[in-house]
Amino acid sequence: MLYTSIENKKIKDLKKLNTRKYREKAGLFLVEGSHLVLEAFKAGRLVELILEENETFSLDIATMYVTHNILSYLSDMESVPTIMGVCKKQEREDVKGERLLLLDSIQDPGNLGTIIRSSVAFHVDTLVLGEHTVDLYNPKTVRSSQGMLFHLNVVSRPLTSLIPRLKEEGFHVFGTRVTGGTRLKEIKRVERFAVIMGNEGNGMSNEIAELCDDFIYIDMNEECESLNVGVATSIILYELDK
Amino acid sequence: MLYTSIENKKIKDLKKLNTRKYREKAGLFLVEGSHLVLEAFKAGRLVELILEENETFSLDIATMYVTHNILSYLSDMESVPTIMGVCKKQEREDVKGERLLLLDSIQDPGNLGTIIRSSVAFHVDTLVLGEHTVDLYNPKTVRSSQGMLFHLNVVSRPLTSLIPRLKEEGFHVFGTRVTGGTRLKEIKRVERFAVIMGNEGNGMSNEIAELCDDFIYIDMNEECESLNVGVATSIILYELDK
Repeated sequence: MLYTSIENKKIKDLKKLNTRKYREKAGLFLVEGSHLVLEAFKAGRLVELILEENETFSLDIATMYVTHNILSYLSDMESVPTIMGVCKKQEREDVKGERLLLLDSIQDPGNLGTIIRSSVAFHVDTLVLGEHTVDLYNPKTVRSSQGMLFHLNVVSRPLTSLIPRLKEEGFHVFGTRVTGGTRLKEIKRVERFAVIMGNEGNGMSNEIAELCDDFIYIDMNEECESLNVGVATSIILYELDK
Repeated sequence: MLYTSIENKKIKDLKKLNTRKYREKAGLFLVEGSHLVLEAFKAGRLVELILEENETFSLDIATMYVTHNILSYLSDMESVPTIMGVCKKQEREDVKGERLLLLDSIQDPGNLGTIIRSSVAFHVDTLVLGEHTVDLYNPKTVRSSQGMLFHLNVVSRPLTSLIPRLKEEGFHVFGTRVTGGTRLKEIKRVERFAVIMGNEGNGMSNEIAELCDDFIYIDMNEECESLNVGVATSIILYELDK
């Protein structure tokens, strides 16, 4: 079926997926471009394909054809794609594995996407989004994750209740700071760990810092106040993955 | 003096600084927000302060007062600042030091900013921008560098002529690839090195790859095709800074 009007109810509903509130209500989110659509399909998370009229894309999945105008209306990108996908959110929500990354109030969707990509690269088992963290299904997060969000177990939990439980289960809980604590290169290796990364401007909240066993910092030039949080996270995960 | 009209010639000229062409012609660029303005001032690169009427900011520098509308017109940001600065570009342009980072066609201004920030953190002496690399003074680059561009020696050079000269001078030239070459952890330490990072989508060009002594790759999960180039650069610089 070809959709030609942005007044169509289905199109209007898809457009609403650009807001977090409606994504949560519907349990769905949008991806843009063939790479992300394919990653979603391989992960069994693609529900429906949205294709520009006259385009073809061989996937055994429900497909709706739309005009360029509709893609432009639905897209979050400056250069409008010819293909988008409707995906379902991750269903199971268990903290599992031995290498955990916990995010405390990360605000920038691009940073979250970068962190997801590096989490897959360096074998994180579960990424935990604390309260006040940007939405996993924000279009910019999805895009900058380069599809890696389909390869990672991501859950949402209040960190103040999760951390004490992890400690009971034998996890070593590493907080992170710009200075103070143990240099990353000197961190002792432990089997089960949780690393906590804090907000872009303010770092970890005091409430959460008080729950940590130890703090990690990355040695650097004094002229540089701090690293980008996506970069700092990636360096820590790289080092702990050795 | 208070400027109230975006039709004013001086305001129009400042607006043109949002384009690379005019920045190159004028030798000037804009920064937004008090943090960047202060960094520019400390580095002796601030030429003039642009302040919203009724605001105060104690710097011994020429100041022009403008309306909120004018700041909104000049700003590249969604949330308009109350303070901006006109800065002069870096004057001296020498490749100096023993730790060099060379960029081959990096396209994303945010990635370049991240790379600048990590270059300062991990003691890069000179950052070399090859041809086809995004402009150092792009507003997004300046912003994501968090002012670190004022702490780094950055030069522009055609890499194909620079690299052979560096090799003659005893630099070890490391190319980078997603796979193939030497694992980052096993790289032998050398006193004088140049690391080359390639384009976000395509990596290094063949022409430049042929000039390298050795290739570095970062060990990672096979599910992850690649890392963000800002992240990969930062991890390599972190490791070589040990």
